[in-house]
Amino acid sequence: MMRRDRLLLAATLTAIFSADLYFVLLPKLRSVGLGSGDLCPCGSDNFTLPRHGGLATPQLSNWTLYGTTSELADDGGSKLERLFSHPLYNIEIPVLGSEERLLQAEQPMEYYRKKVAHWERHMHLRNEAAALSNITVTEHGVTFDPEASWLKFHSGISSYALYSRNDPAIPKLLKDMHRMSVISADYTQDEKALKGACDCTQVVKPSGHHLKLALKMQDFGKAMFKPMRQQRDEETPEDFFYFVDLQRHNAEIAAFHLDRILDFRRVPPVAGRLVNVSGEVLLVTQNEHLRAVFFTSPANNTCFFAKCLYVCKTEYAVCGGPDLLEGSLSAYLPSLSMAPRISISNPWTRSYTFSGREEWEVNPFYCDTVKQQYPYNSGNRLLNIIDMSIFDFLTSNMDRHHYEIFTKFGDDGFLLHLDNARGFGKHSQDEMSILAPLSQCCMIKRSTLVRLQLLARPEFRLSDVMRESLKGDSLQPVLTEPHLSALDRRLQKVLRAVQRCVRRLGEEYVITKDFVKSTGTPQINTEMRKDR
Amino acid sequence: MMRRDRLLLAATLTAIFSADLYFVLLPKLRSVGLGSGDLCPCGSDNFTLPRHGGLATPQLSNWTLYGTTSELADDGGSKLERLFSHPLYNIEIPVLGSEERLLQAEQPMEYYRKKVAHWERHMHLRNEAAALSNITVTEHGVTFDPEASWLKFHSGISSYALYSRNDPAIPKLLKDMHRMSVISADYTQDEKALKGACDCTQVVKPSGHHLKLALKMQDFGKAMFKPMRQQRDEETPEDFFYFVDLQRHNAEIAAFHLDRILDFRRVPPVAGRLVNVSGEVLLVTQNEHLRAVFFTSPANNTCFFAKCLYVCKTEYAVCGGPDLLEGSLSAYLPSLSMAPRISISNPWTRSYTFSGREEWEVNPFYCDTVKQQYPYNSGNRLLNIIDMSIFDFLTSNMDRHHYEIFTKFGDDGFLLHLDNARGFGKHSQDEMSILAPLSQCCMIKRSTLVRLQLLARPEFRLSDVMRESLKGDSLQPVLTEPHLSALDRRLQKVLRAVQRCVRRLGEEYVITKDFVKSTGTPQINTEMRKDR
Repeated sequence: MMRRDRLLLAATLTAIFSADLYFVLLPKLRSVGLGSGDLCPCGSDNFTLPRHGGLATPQLSNWTLYGTTSELADDGGSKLERLFSHPLYNIEIPVLGSEERLLQAEQPMEYYRKKVAHWERHMHLRNEAAALSNITVTEHGVTFDPEASWLKFHSGISSYALYSRNDPAIPKLLKDMHRMSVISADYTQDEKALKGACDCTQVVKPSGHHLKLALKMQDFGKAMFKPMRQQRDEETPEDFFYFVDLQRHNAEIAAFHLDRILDFRRVPPVAGRLVNVSGEVLLVTQNEHLRAVFFTSPANNTCFFAKCLYVCKTEYAVCGGPDLLEGSLSAYLPSLSMAPRISISNPWTRSYTFSGREEWEVNPFYCDTVKQQYPYNSGNRLLNIIDMSIFDFLTSNMDRHHYEIFTKFGDDGFLLHLDNARGFGKHSQDEMSILAPLSQCCMIKRSTLVRLQLLARPEFRLSDVMRESLKGDSLQPVLTEPHLSALDRRLQKVLRAVQRCVRRLGEEYVITKDFVKSTGTPQINTEMRKDR
Repeated sequence: MMRRDRLLLAATLTAIFSADLYFVLLPKLRSVGLGSGDLCPCGSDNFTLPRHGGLATPQLSNWTLYGTTSELADDGGSKLERLFSHPLYNIEIPVLGSEERLLQAEQPMEYYRKKVAHWERHMHLRNEAAALSNITVTEHGVTFDPEASWLKFHSGISSYALYSRNDPAIPKLLKDMHRMSVISADYTQDEKALKGACDCTQVVKPSGHHLKLALKMQDFGKAMFKPMRQQRDEETPEDFFYFVDLQRHNAEIAAFHLDRILDFRRVPPVAGRLVNVSGEVLLVTQNEHLRAVFFTSPANNTCFFAKCLYVCKTEYAVCGGPDLLEGSLSAYLPSLSMAPRISISNPWTRSYTFSGREEWEVNPFYCDTVKQQYPYNSGNRLLNIIDMSIFDFLTSNMDRHHYEIFTKFGDDGFLLHLDNARGFGKHSQDEMSILAPLSQCCMIKRSTLVRLQLLARPEFRLSDVMRESLKGDSLQPVLTEPHLSALDRRLQKVLRAVQRCVRRLGEEYVITKDFVKSTGTPQINTEMRKDR
């Protein structure tokens, strides 16, 4: 274990140091040479990649730079491929030991076998009962596939990320979620927990807008279905509070792609799909309550509405046309029994009332308080929160009241970026308060920063790689052009926020070398600096 | 009384007979002369007004016809003025006796005096209490105005209509509702009756979309305020049931104008207004519950939401910009204590469930059943229902579950066309089922038919006179052009429905001379025909 850790540390440090040299030191020297006193590495103008050669680590040698910046931007090749073959996206991870894997080798397969056996018993009983009552039952061709993509996805989850960069199971999983037959549909656990009741004294939850279903595929892969509720070109009304905003299926899809482009890989795979709400939900569900919320609309479309308070909430129904309905399918994580997670309140949560303000909104020194508190007083947790705030700022998701981590990976495990459907509501506005963790704590992982800087450059422009990445989804265009442009604008704002911090507190303080071990002190990274 | 009735009958019959002669008999003779067997007076092509001369009753002599039809359509003059000066809109009503008036001469004034006295006592006590607690209270300059327009409106209500054609109090009332200071705001009686509770086992009511307030003006006139919830160019989604549709303030305004143009005058006056929700609602209300539903939105606008289940219904809030909010103001009718009304279930009501069907939807002979039943088995009630269905078909309002009548005027009193906010939801669709009373019973008042025929002619085209009439409202354009065009298209469909009935059952059966006394038989109008 220790050896592996050291190896990883060494490899990562070499890569980051090289990146550091080219991205920060060289431009700095250049700008000093030009008489500029500004040492900030953030602006795209005073920041250039070297014209020749790569980052000087052996595993990055297959990366070659193009002639000039303008040529790079205009040659028509795939920017996304170029991005993913960039050295920063090719840092080697050592072979994973069992401690770095979420699941033990045989665990998911055993779980899968049990589920299939249970299903077959259940179907056998159902068919017998049906035969007795002379009813014909639709048979769903269930397959037990040891190569199933969802199984590989679960097996591949490590302490570094939800999936590795080049795992072929991920594109296969996206394809399976898009195409594979649905054999069963049900409410999600969240909705079942409500038991049909609604607590109307709560401002926020549950809302009729929460309408999601769990779909089971032919190979027993499970996905959460969130139906389309809003046209691509509709913006959230300016008077809506974030907690009553609609959930957008396209935001779920786009968030997965963005997370992958940022190389976080903390969002489970999401694919768009045209779901046949009659054939793939109503006919296959065995939940009577779910069947009961289906109805035919005046326009003869098949519709259904949220379980919660449903009789009052017909305004919230979603309808197929007449049966097909766009939606996002998000891959389920391994069950909580196999891979427990904990949900932790976000220190920068919002008040979820009309006029209430949380401390972070009024106290500019709020971060100092957070830094004193466990688990933010050591390790990567605070930096992970800041990563998440950057991700949420880019998508403009204000609804991050909690985050989840896998208990197995301890305090320094990555944060899961689940539930992104309230992003991409307004392209015309940048909600700076989402960036509060960054702007108040003035810290950022160097690995995050260098990738953001890369995506700010014309040859990898965030909007361009996002547009290209989203073209891979069947529901394209997933985002309208104004939303894509907003990503570039917001990225600049993130970089400017870092720039301001650097000016105020210096690079040493602000830009933190990551992959750090806990130091036990609120001042992060002193140990790291000693190491170097 | 008897003499007055006879006088009225004679005058009306003369006018209608003259109209009959020119509108129906002459074209019929002409079309017979041209060898056409079709006797229907509905199409605009086979229907012409005489080129010279008016309808030959003395009081219509000031009406002159223009040269040709095309000149009429293009001369640029006011079509609305021309319409209102047409003989059909100038049938004299005899001087009203106390039986034909809704209120006795001194009744509204006494009511007014009492209200002012009560208000002044209340204000006196409030000011004393405020002085004791050293609070400054806003003083509202209340005026006692014996010439108040709302008072004149109430005094003018007769057994014929809510107001007479040329009553100068009506334009004054519209202006007062648009401009006069608001001294008090409160929930309406409907909302108070809920007592904040919502029965969620009911599909239909109450809904968060029901958001209306009672505003009291400086002169003690009262109006119901319905705020804007939908942009003019938004159409009701095709999957919405009529009973969850939004209420539209502009539909309320347009319905008043349409009702006046049809010469029904069964809709109380409605005017548009930009209401300052802070100054004219929040600051002046003495209802704490109402104050409690106000909040400031993320965009810093003043908003409020429905009383019913309010904490769950923030999605339904309406917001000023930052304080001004468009809405319709409908004049209140005299209080129920002075002028009792009864609310009666519409025989052609809809099921208000997802899949339920009412008998009229499945039984083509439903009208025969209705005709047997009191009060539809005699008098004008059924014809009044058919008038209402034509009005609702033109506005496309499917939500007419009840209608109201003044008890004083008995079974033959006119039906009040209240609550028209669910009209004008879709311009692209004509909901033929709204016309069921006409198409199933195959009866229509001649007075209604001849006015519809007039409005189908290019020189009085319904869309043109509506556009002109609506220009008088401060919130113009009240309706978009597609909604105006829909009126012309729907008018043609009404006329075609009549035409089909005439072909099937003959004119004698279908076109009923109105102003009839009850005959006590389901066959309407035999007595009438004997009279002629």
